[in-house]
Amino acid sequence: MSELPRFGAGLWHFASYLDRYATDGYKEPLTTLEQIDRAGEVEDLSVVDVPYPFTEGVTVEQVKDALAKNGLECIGVTPEIYMRKYGKGAFTNPDPQVRADAIAFLHEAADVVRALGANYLKVWPGQDGWDYPFQVDHGQQWRLAVDGMRELAQANPDIKIVIEYKPREPRNKMFWDSAAKTALGIQAMGVDNVGVLLDFGHALFGGESPSAAAQLLIDHGLLWAMDVNDNLRGWDDDMVVGTVHPVEVFEFFYTLKINNWEGVWQLDQFPFREDTVEAANLSIRFLKGLHRALDELDIDALREAQSRQDAIGAQKLVQDVLFSCLRSE
Amino acid sequence: MSELPRFGAGLWHFASYLDRYATDGYKEPLTTLEQIDRAGEVEDLSVVDVPYPFTEGVTVEQVKDALAKNGLECIGVTPEIYMRKYGKGAFTNPDPQVRADAIAFLHEAADVVRALGANYLKVWPGQDGWDYPFQVDHGQQWRLAVDGMRELAQANPDIKIVIEYKPREPRNKMFWDSAAKTALGIQAMGVDNVGVLLDFGHALFGGESPSAAAQLLIDHGLLWAMDVNDNLRGWDDDMVVGTVHPVEVFEFFYTLKINNWEGVWQLDQFPFREDTVEAANLSIRFLKGLHRALDELDIDALREAQSRQDAIGAQKLVQDVLFSCLRSE
Amino acid sequence: MSELPRFGAGLWHFASYLDRYATDGYKEPLTTLEQIDRAGEVEDLSVVDVPYPFTEGVTVEQVKDALAKNGLECIGVTPEIYMRKYGKGAFTNPDPQVRADAIAFLHEAADVVRALGANYLKVWPGQDGWDYPFQVDHGQQWRLAVDGMRELAQANPDIKIVIEYKPREPRNKMFWDSAAKTALGIQAMGVDNVGVLLDFGHALFGGESPSAAAQLLIDHGLLWAMDVNDNLRGWDDDMVVGTVHPVEVFEFFYTLKINNWEGVWQLDQFPFREDTVEAANLSIRFLKGLHRALDELDIDALREAQSRQDAIGAQKLVQDVLFSCLRSE
Amino acid sequence: MSELPRFGAGLWHFASYLDRYATDGYKEPLTTLEQIDRAGEVEDLSVVDVPYPFTEGVTVEQVKDALAKNGLECIGVTPEIYMRKYGKGAFTNPDPQVRADAIAFLHEAADVVRALGANYLKVWPGQDGWDYPFQVDHGQQWRLAVDGMRELAQANPDIKIVIEYKPREPRNKMFWDSAAKTALGIQAMGVDNVGVLLDFGHALFGGESPSAAAQLLIDHGLLWAMDVNDNLRGWDDDMVVGTVHPVEVFEFFYTLKINNWEGVWQLDQFPFREDTVEAANLSIRFLKGLHRALDELDIDALREAQSRQDAIGAQKLVQDVLFSCLRSE
Repeated sequence: MSELPRFGAGLWHFASYLDRYATDGYKEPLTTLEQIDRAGEVEDLSVVDVPYPFTEGVTVEQVKDALAKNGLECIGVTPEIYMRKYGKGAFTNPDPQVRADAIAFLHEAADVVRALGANYLKVWPGQDGWDYPFQVDHGQQWRLAVDGMRELAQANPDIKIVIEYKPREPRNKMFWDSAAKTALGIQAMGVDNVGVLLDFGHALFGGESPSAAAQLLIDHGLLWAMDVNDNLRGWDDDMVVGTVHPVEVFEFFYTLKINNWEGVWQLDQFPFREDTVEAANLSIRFLKGLHRALDELDIDALREAQSRQDAIGAQKLVQDVLFSCLRSE
Repeated sequence: MSELPRFGAGLWHFASYLDRYATDGYKEPLTTLEQIDRAGEVEDLSVVDVPYPFTEGVTVEQVKDALAKNGLECIGVTPEIYMRKYGKGAFTNPDPQVRADAIAFLHEAADVVRALGANYLKVWPGQDGWDYPFQVDHGQQWRLAVDGMRELAQANPDIKIVIEYKPREPRNKMFWDSAAKTALGIQAMGVDNVGVLLDFGHALFGGESPSAAAQLLIDHGLLWAMDVNDNLRGWDDDMVVGTVHPVEVFEFFYTLKINNWEGVWQLDQFPFREDTVEAANLSIRFLKGLHRALDELDIDALREAQSRQDAIGAQKLVQDVLFSCLRSE
Repeated sequence: MSELPRFGAGLWHFASYLDRYATDGYKEPLTTLEQIDRAGEVEDLSVVDVPYPFTEGVTVEQVKDALAKNGLECIGVTPEIYMRKYGKGAFTNPDPQVRADAIAFLHEAADVVRALGANYLKVWPGQDGWDYPFQVDHGQQWRLAVDGMRELAQANPDIKIVIEYKPREPRNKMFWDSAAKTALGIQAMGVDNVGVLLDFGHALFGGESPSAAAQLLIDHGLLWAMDVNDNLRGWDDDMVVGTVHPVEVFEFFYTLKINNWEGVWQLDQFPFREDTVEAANLSIRFLKGLHRALDELDIDALREAQSRQDAIGAQKLVQDVLFSCLRSE
Repeated sequence: MSELPRFGAGLWHFASYLDRYATDGYKEPLTTLEQIDRAGEVEDLSVVDVPYPFTEGVTVEQVKDALAKNGLECIGVTPEIYMRKYGKGAFTNPDPQVRADAIAFLHEAADVVRALGANYLKVWPGQDGWDYPFQVDHGQQWRLAVDGMRELAQANPDIKIVIEYKPREPRNKMFWDSAAKTALGIQAMGVDNVGVLLDFGHALFGGESPSAAAQLLIDHGLLWAMDVNDNLRGWDDDMVVGTVHPVEVFEFFYTLKINNWEGVWQLDQFPFREDTVEAANLSIRFLKGLHRALDELDIDALREAQSRQDAIGAQKLVQDVLFSCLRSE
């Protein structure tokens, strides 16, 4: 059996959540440090992606200590450029002062990347986009989005930046909404320290094949990080990976394997009503099953079936290993 | 020109909102009384649907006074059975104590209906449903949902109850999810004081024709209230009515008209990033346009076209009046 | 291990297909008798659902003989009330003569049910519905759809009729579009020989939980037949079962099992570009895997998890048996 | 009032259609010449896009004559690379011989472009893509799709080629599926005679804002042609333009206007059950209404509202002109 990958999770996996109805939150809030402790309870978790700012009063030093205490490393830092202030966007906010503040805040977050020794600054401009027809000048949005990211990248040449695209939510449409558009935008930036974090669920509910999206980004040298979860294809439900679409997530990891992609297998889940540690444990148990299935898959035979677009032959090979990957022995 | 209908709105239209990302809220929170004052600023608004409980410290008497001061009446009361406590459901919560608490709380809300002289108790069990395959026993859900509503209805025979159905959100799937299922459930209750509030946007994003859903409910004697808004068909975006789907909302009001349905034309919108009063004013301006278009529509000719399923002929008649309804004269 | 169910398929599974682009068809056309021979090549297939009319020149006697020769029985007969003549509907066609012709043709199909000793007449009025807003009078559609089906049922009291619902295609909206609406319509008919055929894929792409839809129909005494397949949730892709949504189809069969539903496990697939026999064999291989998984599932433990809406606990039990169901031993 | 644009239509708008159910076709088939005569009956139609091959026995000379007789010009030629032979793709077909045949056939079609004096060769590889997870090697698909198109372009430097992208159908996923992916692929080709035909309905049901997609293509110098229609956002229904989404199609034309895009306003509709000439006439009547609305729109005020992302203000300006654009005077 080949070596297991490292497993990771967004630290928010261990937070509590609210939404526009349950405004009192589904559970009691936890501090950043408490969330790290929860993450530490998960079996086989090695790294976390840490939102910034931390909860009130928590320092970078405390975060470092909490991570060390729990045997965790910080893989990325996620600045919260989607709070009230940025309700109409960060990079593409109509107010120049807000745009400037966003950039300043992102520089601050880059310092946290440095301080925590993280691999990347993750930029998810969830409020950059539009809600209504005729609300924005789409040409202007492109210019602000691309120019702003270039500026950020050029000012921080020592830092890797990954853009996480998503079709929508919280805006009705998000600017960075697909793998291809993000690749196109990054080409236009002309920098070499901006790549993509592909979220499996975002690709899925956006109508992409996550596997095809991954291949496209790999072929453009841009797949620098990823995370997985699941949904019902109509929304970013951030459910536990494998609970709805195990076949497509298996194809996604297959695509990573044949391209020798060797990064962290990371979770981006929102267990609103579930125990967060249990949800992570179930996820990693399933991911280990997939890893075993990949080891057992007859890749040469699969490639041969694909060379004829033989869907039935390909599926048979896949089913053999997928539907036996959690067998006990 | 025929008489204008009365216009209404859910009072939440004038609140501020948060979501799972902008947890600090898109605007400053307002008290129930402040929200009523905002509603009072809208031209031509006659009634509101009031969430219960009111914001902290506000009494029924204060609400009555505020409504009177603003020239508003209370059409309905919406108990908030979708907060943390009810995260796994109100009527169908797995915990019998929570179910009992929900019923007790709904009785309390019924008293508020009486106190405010409202027309109905609106019941929207947004947390009743499920998120994951295999999470619930679907037969059990039906029994709890139907039996609980019957119990509530029988204990309050002087009160009209309307169920508002919705396909999903906040649960990944909501139990009361369509016009037909709600009608079927109400038939099984065997009571005569439960009907339906049809939300145009819920029907639309659930894949129903809102007009067909309205006709079905009318033919079953169950369309007791409605509200309108708009969305991009994939989610309950609660946008300003008419901004995306003016044709289908026109068909919806046409259906009400030919059935002599004479209730309030009500708004259920969430203007996250917009001025709430302006959003309501634009909505009512558009609804008045639709009312004028209905006055001008050649209904006999339309019926004749429909008798042949002549889509082109029908659309021509409709376009003539719809795309001239906001002309100035 | 419990006894295997009988497996079946719509005979069209073994036909060739065309669509609006590949108007010359994806493969050479086959006669009804050739299709039966192809069905006979499938391992473990016991019954077929036979479209009527047969291809040109084929007689009922020939069909009987071909079925016998291939060791197959006829479970149902599907009259083709969706050809050009019925382009604007069969039961709800605006032309009274076409409606009368449809009923006459359905009587003829009922005679074929008798002649072939089939279990049911399957009625799928795929052209009954609408395409455009304002195209039809929705109240009139309900009356024609319900009255026509009642008339058919009352004229054939010895025949079981099953309605197959579907959200859309070929009409943009189909009248019988969900489990609940079909149940509501059947209740309005007041007959006891009309039930429902639930197509897993139709439920899925209509936004239903197929499992919840099955339970609802069972609880109303109406789940008389079913078939399975798969899709990408946005359309009736009629893909091979289990290739995309194995978890939900497993939940669907679980629901049948706990209700002691003992009918045929039937395929409704359109292998446009695939070998039809191979597609059926792969499907049945997977369904046998599901049957094994059901045998191994700890149902008491699952029910206990469901009694708490414990999604993680439920999924763990499910994954244990699903992801080992095709292991060799 | 500014000058009206030229109006066009795909010649298939005047054909008859079949689908996988109504295999006998919704109407009697028409020859290419009869279709041109039907197109000639439409008021205000100037150009058509002609499928190739023509119906049996029809010659290029006959087509030229028929066009001239009806006062029509040929704007583009659409080779039918989506028939049986290309069921698994044209450019990306797994069989090298089929790929070679596709290219040879496209050269032939390029000669028809020359012979008819058309503006472009329209390439819509509807069968290039995949149906099942694991069916294809996505990296290989990219190479075949991009290399094949480059080869075609380089061999015909005097011809403009436009790629029409579409999310899916007839394949479950189509390779050229979005504006951004098509732009990315064209950049990779490194040729200057390949652009994009943007189909409004394809963008809409693919989850794009058609207006944003148009702007993106314009900014990359690639929007060389377009056509419009409408749908219910879940499928390429090819309905009559404006019957469902008049606001977004208005935004689309607004975007063309502010970019001084001056091409043909073209229809791509499939009036399965409607009179094809009436459907075209209704469409052009509506498009003229939009043109008038554009003339009357206060663009400076709209830009000012957009500069603040003021959705309400923008919509008000839009509604003023859109909902009066068909007024009689």
